Amino acid sequence: MSLLDPKERTERGVVQQSQLLAAPVPEPRTLFESSWRDYIFAEVWTRPGLELRARYLVSICSAASADTPRDILDGYVRGALANQALSLTELREAALHYAIYGGWSCGAIVDEAISRAAAQLGLPDEGFSPIRAEPWDPQARLAEGARGFENVMTFGGPPPAVAYFEGGILNFVFGEVWERPGLDQRGRRWVTLVGVANSSADTPIRTHVYGAMASGNASFEEMNEFVLQYAIHSGWPRASFVQGVVFEMAEKVKNRQTWDGKPLGESGNE
Amino acid sequence: MSLLDPKERTERGVVQQSQLLAAPVPEPRTLFESSWRDYIFAEVWTRPGLELRARYLVSICSAASADTPRDILDGYVRGALANQALSLTELREAALHYAIYGGWSCGAIVDEAISRAAAQLGLPDEGFSPIRAEPWDPQARLAEGARGFENVMTFGGPPPAVAYFEGGILNFVFGEVWERPGLDQRGRRWVTLVGVANSSADTPIRTHVYGAMASGNASFEEMNEFVLQYAIHSGWPRASFVQGVVFEMAEKVKNRQTWDGKPLGESGNE
Amino acid sequence: MSLLDPKERTERGVVQQSQLLAAPVPEPRTLFESSWRDYIFAEVWTRPGLELRARYLVSICSAASADTPRDILDGYVRGALANQALSLTELREAALHYAIYGGWSCGAIVDEAISRAAAQLGLPDEGFSPIRAEPWDPQARLAEGARGFENVMTFGGPPPAVAYFEGGILNFVFGEVWERPGLDQRGRRWVTLVGVANSSADTPIRTHVYGAMASGNASFEEMNEFVLQYAIHSGWPRASFVQGVVFEMAEKVKNRQTWDGKPLGESGNE
Repeated sequence: MSLLDPKERTERGVVQQSQLLAAPVPEPRTLFESSWRDYIFAEVWTRPGLELRARYLVSICSAASADTPRDILDGYVRGALANQALSLTELREAALHYAIYGGWSCGAIVDEAISRAAAQLGLPDEGFSPIRAEPWDPQARLAEGARGFENVMTFGGPPPAVAYFEGGILNFVFGEVWERPGLDQRGRRWVTLVGVANSSADTPIRTHVYGAMASGNASFEEMNEFVLQYAIHSGWPRASFVQGVVFEMAEKVKNRQTWDGKPLGESGNE
Repeated sequence: MSLLDPKERTERGVVQQSQLLAAPVPEPRTLFESSWRDYIFAEVWTRPGLELRARYLVSICSAASADTPRDILDGYVRGALANQALSLTELREAALHYAIYGGWSCGAIVDEAISRAAAQLGLPDEGFSPIRAEPWDPQARLAEGARGFENVMTFGGPPPAVAYFEGGILNFVFGEVWERPGLDQRGRRWVTLVGVANSSADTPIRTHVYGAMASGNASFEEMNEFVLQYAIHSGWPRASFVQGVVFEMAEKVKNRQTWDGKPLGESGNE
Repeated sequence: MSLLDPKERTERGVVQQSQLLAAPVPEPRTLFESSWRDYIFAEVWTRPGLELRARYLVSICSAASADTPRDILDGYVRGALANQALSLTELREAALHYAIYGGWSCGAIVDEAISRAAAQLGLPDEGFSPIRAEPWDPQARLAEGARGFENVMTFGGPPPAVAYFEGGILNFVFGEVWERPGLDQRGRRWVTLVGVANSSADTPIRTHVYGAMASGNASFEEMNEFVLQYAIHSGWPRASFVQGVVFEMAEKVKNRQTWDGKPLGESGNE
């Protein structure tokens, strides 16, 4: 039995923290500050099973919703850019995508952090493709949204009878944002999962955890790593609920059931 | 079939955004920034079915709880004042009312935004009526709170056995704040609904959505518009839960049931 | 029947507010500002049944998670230090402990407020004991965490099959933080309860409210006072849910049941 050494843990933490945030790490002055180095960077970020790109997206979004001190949030964005885990275009897409699931305020917080980090690294601004460039037919736009919903959620959506479903979910969320090319579906999953997990709203958490695994975007093992990475900024209690849902939904996917327990293929939801 | 034009959408967004925030709109530099203009202002704020006064109250309160960048929050307050959708007195009442349902920190955030926006517009400070000016009898104060509870909630409240109900709910929330004259009951509903929706607490959400409709303060159609306006700053997943509760409670009100499904008149709750 | 006097309430509020925040109280300029003095400090902080030390821990943590204006948060920390309700070491431990239950961002907010308040009071920095100073065996660390879990929660924990339980709960939360000597278990309870209550996650709220009373750390009467103190920054709707759980779990503890209703001693959880 070989013992592990706290000095080794600290050294690993220093290396990780400085590389991941692309900045030198100051010596911690308090117990809390030391926990970044000796726990968060030495023991959580170093875990196998989930790539850095996903860990950055999860950290940026959950930090944006937690009133995070600016140097910490900017550090994640700078690190993601400097380590080429995410491009500027991907991050800009993530800011819009997160606005939907975490609210427009938090989208703004992510977007402003991107601007500051890009300026720090001297990255030139790239311009952007508009939300929709071509003229559209309102009925076709709704139908497009309905197809996007099924593609992402793996089951059919609700009829567009009210503002939230028609003006929100179908016209915009699935009709205009999820299908944009600048960030792939797996990337959008992590952004989405942080937003729904923070809401503490039961059904969105269940359906999106299910959708992440049923679509093949994320494996059960990756979802388990997601939960711990998510806990850093959103807290252990919220992560605890998500962990329970991951267990439950992994069973449903394995047993070829819908998220609410019906056999796949009988519900008309495939 | 006539096609809709993205240029028209953008132009509508520019007009709306600058009028609603009472300030010129800078050209968006990022994809996210463009979404304010092309989606939030062009497509959500322009929807019929809910008056501007309600949309401002919902946006101010939900923005205050979302760590919103100051220029955005101040813009809503400035717009509400400049467009005479809400008076300074009404906004000050909303700040205190929101403190109860969104916490004292967010009450402070609203109150400070009001001060900044009023200063920008050169509106003189008005003074305020104290929370309670006359001497009171403790038992009468509790009884007053109990009557206020029934008036607002449309059903009877709990007995004042503990600090939360006695010192919180009856003595203060219903005994001193809801009945104040500076903001009408319908205005207080939107403030309340944002706070309860953000809490993700099941029973407060159900009872207050029920109370909003059962009291006649808001129609089913208005509640549906509320959900999408609320989603802007609080995110789609929380709004999704509220939308489900709106459907459910509208049925209960229509069928003359209490919020938890008992026939009205048999429960002693009328 | 003797009437109570609003002037007396205001005077009491001024005395309380200035003592508790260790600073002179400016004259309120708005209705909202007057509510700190005439309600929060005059009527909530003055209630019997929960000591100042607990009220400070609850207020500091719930304020840290609510985007609270800096002067308010710093005031609580300054007051806790100046009134010797909490030592600098205890507060530093609370910052790390709260990072777990409220997320690392809010831990940082508490930690930075402590640094500012200590500087205002001229308190010298004390240094800190590292999270773990001695070499360790990974299996023994997990076993230590499992014992810590049972000690705190009063029932056995889950097997360490995934990142969240192994890398999070057992190795760190119960293996390294809860057992640290700088803050006693009762103090850690209040910090924990704020974090779980804010999450709106049902099972963590139930198990921690149960554990607080089943361990003897807090009585039913103290938990009732906690709920109102917690409501100040976290809002009435969240507190309403916690109040319901306090009633429910007090019954379970009294009837010698587990948090989920099994007879104690039959479940193997004692």
